[in-house]
Amino acid sequence: MTWHVVTGGAGFIGANLVRRLVQTGGRVVVVDDLSLGRREHLAGLADTLLLQLDAADAGALAAALRMVPDGPVEVWHLCANSDIQKGVTDPSVDLRATFLTTFAVLEVMRTRNWRRLHFASTSAVYGDHGTTAIHELTPTLPVSNYGAMKLASEAIIRAACETFLDSARVFRFPNVVGLPATHGAILDFTRRLIADPQRLAVLGNGMQQKAYLHVAELVDAMLFIRDHADGPHRIYNIGPEDAGIRISAIAEMVRSRVAPAAAIAYGTEARGWVGDVPRFRYDVSRLKALGWAPRLGSAQAVARAVDEIAQQEFCRYDA
Amino acid sequence: MTWHVVTGGAGFIGANLVRRLVQTGGRVVVVDDLSLGRREHLAGLADTLLLQLDAADAGALAAALRMVPDGPVEVWHLCANSDIQKGVTDPSVDLRATFLTTFAVLEVMRTRNWRRLHFASTSAVYGDHGTTAIHELTPTLPVSNYGAMKLASEAIIRAACETFLDSARVFRFPNVVGLPATHGAILDFTRRLIADPQRLAVLGNGMQQKAYLHVAELVDAMLFIRDHADGPHRIYNIGPEDAGIRISAIAEMVRSRVAPAAAIAYGTEARGWVGDVPRFRYDVSRLKALGWAPRLGSAQAVARAVDEIAQQEFCRYDA
Repeated sequence: MTWHVVTGGAGFIGANLVRRLVQTGGRVVVVDDLSLGRREHLAGLADTLLLQLDAADAGALAAALRMVPDGPVEVWHLCANSDIQKGVTDPSVDLRATFLTTFAVLEVMRTRNWRRLHFASTSAVYGDHGTTAIHELTPTLPVSNYGAMKLASEAIIRAACETFLDSARVFRFPNVVGLPATHGAILDFTRRLIADPQRLAVLGNGMQQKAYLHVAELVDAMLFIRDHADGPHRIYNIGPEDAGIRISAIAEMVRSRVAPAAAIAYGTEARGWVGDVPRFRYDVSRLKALGWAPRLGSAQAVARAVDEIAQQEFCRYDA
Repeated sequence: MTWHVVTGGAGFIGANLVRRLVQTGGRVVVVDDLSLGRREHLAGLADTLLLQLDAADAGALAAALRMVPDGPVEVWHLCANSDIQKGVTDPSVDLRATFLTTFAVLEVMRTRNWRRLHFASTSAVYGDHGTTAIHELTPTLPVSNYGAMKLASEAIIRAACETFLDSARVFRFPNVVGLPATHGAILDFTRRLIADPQRLAVLGNGMQQKAYLHVAELVDAMLFIRDHADGPHRIYNIGPEDAGIRISAIAEMVRSRVAPAAAIAYGTEARGWVGDVPRFRYDVSRLKALGWAPRLGSAQAVARAVDEIAQQEFCRYDA
């Protein structure tokens, strides 16, 4: 039986990954401080243990992970601050939650001789390249502290491949949607329209256009890369092949599902907030050449998630 | 009078920069923990104050810099761990000295409303691209923690340009030689040949080939970029136009200057140590287009430094 350590495993993407790892016969240790993750996201999963701690605390992390027996372990490092705006206001948030967690995870891996790392990076490492399609060799000029601290994490992972890591897979995620929703535009719009079914105020002018992937497909891609990529260090953009969908289209989809009578009020700025990237288009030819492509385009992924998240939130209100 | 804050200003490159800033009429506050820098490097300089502290301690840094009056300040952030090998063995060295110093400097700048930053980055952010000439858009895949933490620093500086920085200049230094020598291959060879004039053991097979710049020209380039580049954020490779010089040639130059009878023993590895980049060639066309090119090639810069460093070290022994 393969042991997996999944940081951030009680979060949105993490919980989906953990479920898949358990389904494929793995034993999973989740590390999560439950600041954004939830214990109930892992409800009913066999062979899964949750360690509630701050992964930036290398000492606490090493001590808690002593329960993992010696032998090969795959580490999936997903935990991070996922609130980009919060990290812009206070850079120490991303320093600790997004970068120092990576530093501590690598320290523990080095000590334990764990040599396989899968890392959840982000399109935010690239910064704003306008309408140019972004491939893995595009210069990385992040415009948010979140993107900067993910890039910093990628950098020390790359360096660790020179010393003790046998294999590092760096997944540069696009915007990801689905359940269990913990943050993001769809959840935000849904909650605000449930609270006030007459009016929805949207940050920015609604013209921001971004690529979206459904979480089920994202996890599928991660496992595909794990199983098919070779070499010690590989970076993959994971995303749809299209140019994305506008925030205004997302707002309208949520409105028609949740509160059809609402008026939508847009702002005037081209970007939603400082550190936001208003346009974003992925070149995913490297992943396609490896043999994987998503079934859902951005609009389809968002449509599915709008429906799922509406159900999640209406249930929450019913309860 | 312009105020300058120079971190690492008592070190090798820093002391040369401080001297030039004072010569051009600036008032300079040096922040240096004197772990590699030396108080005597700043001897005799008017209008220069040395604050001895660890710049990674944001609280101490902010407190000490209260003596700088409000108003525009140029910050030159040079302090870092310059011992790449040490950072490979213990990643916390580069985390603190190379990255957390940058984080703290930005925090102080934000608080004080200082908006102009000049940052000493490095060719080590690129990693190993073989014989391909490296330009500023070449992917950054560092193979040392030093390179990784410089890249992390670049990333948060880029993000800070979205919030409070008006201007960031990122200088990607090549190997730099000259006085006062505190570390590096020439100094190492010189000291070991003075200690044992019969034999010099060189790490690696001597075939590592790298571009070198003399520190006097480096500082010249930094000031040139400060005065001529525009836009909020700019990255420049600074270096010679040639393909560099072999470690074996450097060892032979030091031998003929210091101990002509010595036998040189090379290792067998293509790289000198983990995290070393065995070949390294810069594309400096961006800086050339701005209007600056060095007068000395790699071999000339090394030859001048070999002579200077021999004098420095023989004086040290005489004293």
